[in-house]
Amino acid sequence: MNAVDIIIKKRDSKALTDEEIRFFIDGYTEGKIPDYQAAAWAMAVLCRGMTARETTALTRAMAESGEMVSLKGIADIAVDKHSTGGVGDKTTLIVQPIVTACGLPVAKMSGRGLGFSGGTIDKFESIPGMRLNLSKEEFLNQLKQYGTVLSGQSADLAPADGKLYALRDVTGTVPSIPLIASSIMSKKIAAGTPLILLDVKVGNGAFMETLEKAEKLARLMVSIGKKFGRSVKAELTDMNQPLGYAVGNALEVQEAVRMLRGEKSAPDLYEHCIESSALMIKMGKKAKSVDEARHMAEDAIHTGKALESLKLLVRLQGGDVSYIDDLAKFPKAPIIRDLYARSDGWLSEINARMVGEASVLLGAGRVTKADRIDHRVGIIVHHKVGDPIKKGMPLFTVHANNEEKLNQAAELLNNACKYSESEVEKLPQFYGLIE
Amino acid sequence: MNAVDIIIKKRDSKALTDEEIRFFIDGYTEGKIPDYQAAAWAMAVLCRGMTARETTALTRAMAESGEMVSLKGIADIAVDKHSTGGVGDKTTLIVQPIVTACGLPVAKMSGRGLGFSGGTIDKFESIPGMRLNLSKEEFLNQLKQYGTVLSGQSADLAPADGKLYALRDVTGTVPSIPLIASSIMSKKIAAGTPLILLDVKVGNGAFMETLEKAEKLARLMVSIGKKFGRSVKAELTDMNQPLGYAVGNALEVQEAVRMLRGEKSAPDLYEHCIESSALMIKMGKKAKSVDEARHMAEDAIHTGKALESLKLLVRLQGGDVSYIDDLAKFPKAPIIRDLYARSDGWLSEINARMVGEASVLLGAGRVTKADRIDHRVGIIVHHKVGDPIKKGMPLFTVHANNEEKLNQAAELLNNACKYSESEVEKLPQFYGLIE
Repeated sequence: MNAVDIIIKKRDSKALTDEEIRFFIDGYTEGKIPDYQAAAWAMAVLCRGMTARETTALTRAMAESGEMVSLKGIADIAVDKHSTGGVGDKTTLIVQPIVTACGLPVAKMSGRGLGFSGGTIDKFESIPGMRLNLSKEEFLNQLKQYGTVLSGQSADLAPADGKLYALRDVTGTVPSIPLIASSIMSKKIAAGTPLILLDVKVGNGAFMETLEKAEKLARLMVSIGKKFGRSVKAELTDMNQPLGYAVGNALEVQEAVRMLRGEKSAPDLYEHCIESSALMIKMGKKAKSVDEARHMAEDAIHTGKALESLKLLVRLQGGDVSYIDDLAKFPKAPIIRDLYARSDGWLSEINARMVGEASVLLGAGRVTKADRIDHRVGIIVHHKVGDPIKKGMPLFTVHANNEEKLNQAAELLNNACKYSESEVEKLPQFYGLIE
Repeated sequence: MNAVDIIIKKRDSKALTDEEIRFFIDGYTEGKIPDYQAAAWAMAVLCRGMTARETTALTRAMAESGEMVSLKGIADIAVDKHSTGGVGDKTTLIVQPIVTACGLPVAKMSGRGLGFSGGTIDKFESIPGMRLNLSKEEFLNQLKQYGTVLSGQSADLAPADGKLYALRDVTGTVPSIPLIASSIMSKKIAAGTPLILLDVKVGNGAFMETLEKAEKLARLMVSIGKKFGRSVKAELTDMNQPLGYAVGNALEVQEAVRMLRGEKSAPDLYEHCIESSALMIKMGKKAKSVDEARHMAEDAIHTGKALESLKLLVRLQGGDVSYIDDLAKFPKAPIIRDLYARSDGWLSEINARMVGEASVLLGAGRVTKADRIDHRVGIIVHHKVGDPIKKGMPLFTVHANNEEKLNQAAELLNNACKYSESEVEKLPQFYGLIE
């Protein structure tokens, strides 16, 4: 068996055996197969595809490339949630406290933002003192003792995926359904969480731009999870416009806290969080039906238990809880300016990808992994697709640290909006549940 | 402009601009773009293809990555010939002396064998003393003074192609029509030869296994050559069975010398050499028609002028001419053994690729570039497809240096032959001429 023959086989659209996939991934992880062969292989996989059997074998080989964690005896029904990434997606900050407050342990592995898509770790780092690189022991102890923990990916989990993902990022081989599915699932399988809710985003602000592709990815990940004995569901949700109103790290944390306080908030974000929480609560058998679980999730907000749970999580991980109690403590960006609607009519588009790119321009995200982010900057989106608009109404409030960046972002934001002279329907939020 | 965006554009099946191709090739040659990005790009090109315009731009970028030679004032009508590679193809050893004897200067750039396909440089090295790594000055001086010269590729010519070819060889990205066409033509364009005859092989012993692909490659190379003001023709010739009788370096030299002596020889090889020589003579305007050129080529053999021309070439490049005068001087392999027909009937197949692989097994070729070859070993193929056969007749004579290798080669050779109970037509030799 050798690397070139395996590349050629995939290039010629043939299915690789489990042994060939294992040989390639082990060889690459150990440094016996060089980056240039892995790059050619990844491009061949992107162009020619993989069967579900091959993708499962790839997931297994990457998961088993490092430590395999078991949560048996620590949290037998712990749940993790994974979003494929979007703009304004602060769901974890709201859902994790709700679900924990409803009695289900949450063992959350999160990532950083890259490109137009934000990341939960970056958002939580807006809170001073917050530690998000827990050791395995810290992670498991906190999970066992308190039932809530959130950390960045440990380098010990699925190291093959870490190495391959870094290579894919610089070789144009990210958007391949088998490579995305195996990357996500290998980390989840290695982390040992028995229940997994996947949130597969669809639309111009997601990696999967069409429902067809998103559904394919979701079905593949659910089937892989089941092969490893996990309980997995995948919701297909809209990412054609930003989720909620806030885009940018500290701004999103504040929006999440306000929702947990029970303050008036973006209806799409509220609905998304209640539905996702309910799916998790139901998966963990804390409710008999999704309806019952939805009531439990709403109660967790209204009784203040969810907010307490967020504060517990922040306190346990070294964060300054006074920021949660007093949102005015979050530092403000030096320039805060409104952008106004340019027409009368109805909003027919607020392009999520362009809003995400504008937030990256402002400094809220990264173009390369080495970039530093400014937690203060970002965008408040005051309206949703379908809203009636009068010329001169504020559409966005931009939080910037620099006039030039603000002007660039403003141009992008103005271009992100389209207006219609006739009434426009609201965008759907959910496209289905794969289980 | 950056490498990842260029990879992504090609991955998404879009045509690259000339500037993007130049940026990528220059960056790769200078080491600014790493091997892993070039590997992903090459696989994307293989999977998604390139337009003729892109392939021309790639040829130009690779040709201009090093020195561009001009033959003006040295040999204004010099001709080069390039075969895409096959089994038993010793044409250059015969055609170059014929064409030179007919008054047309030949400036031949040759390569080494790799895999099942042989190389002219390896064959000539069977003659002791022969120098085939001439400097540019030696090459041009000998061409100007004697009108015949043959050398391996100089590292100064199209260095981008040298680097990219080595990478393609280990990343499964060799069999791409635009990459093959630009690799061949970039070296020819940089070398400055005004007339070029391409011999595009078709069949199981060639890189192009179907006539459709071979014709596509031929048309592309001819059109690229014309864009650079060269006179280019491409013949499409059969490579489903070995060309001539001998396969293996010293054995092929001896077969070539015997043909130039006017001895009875393989009719397919004779016809191939006369036709190729005639095409070159006609391109160089040394004859008014191909028919007239064919007569000139046959005369060059019968008068002994072509043999004298071969001896001149060998002498000029330091080779021991006594080997040409007395073929018995070539060292013989220690084991020489016949293999016999296993059935009565007609030969319906002598798989060229398998015969080529058997010769590599014996030590006549290389699996990796670092392998050393044994010039003595090889195979004499006594029959052609369509020949009537009696069980027990000798089909092959194997020249080996080791019993074990002989047995392995014998098994391959026996499997390379198929027999038919009814009469079988001879294989065609020529499939067309692209001009």
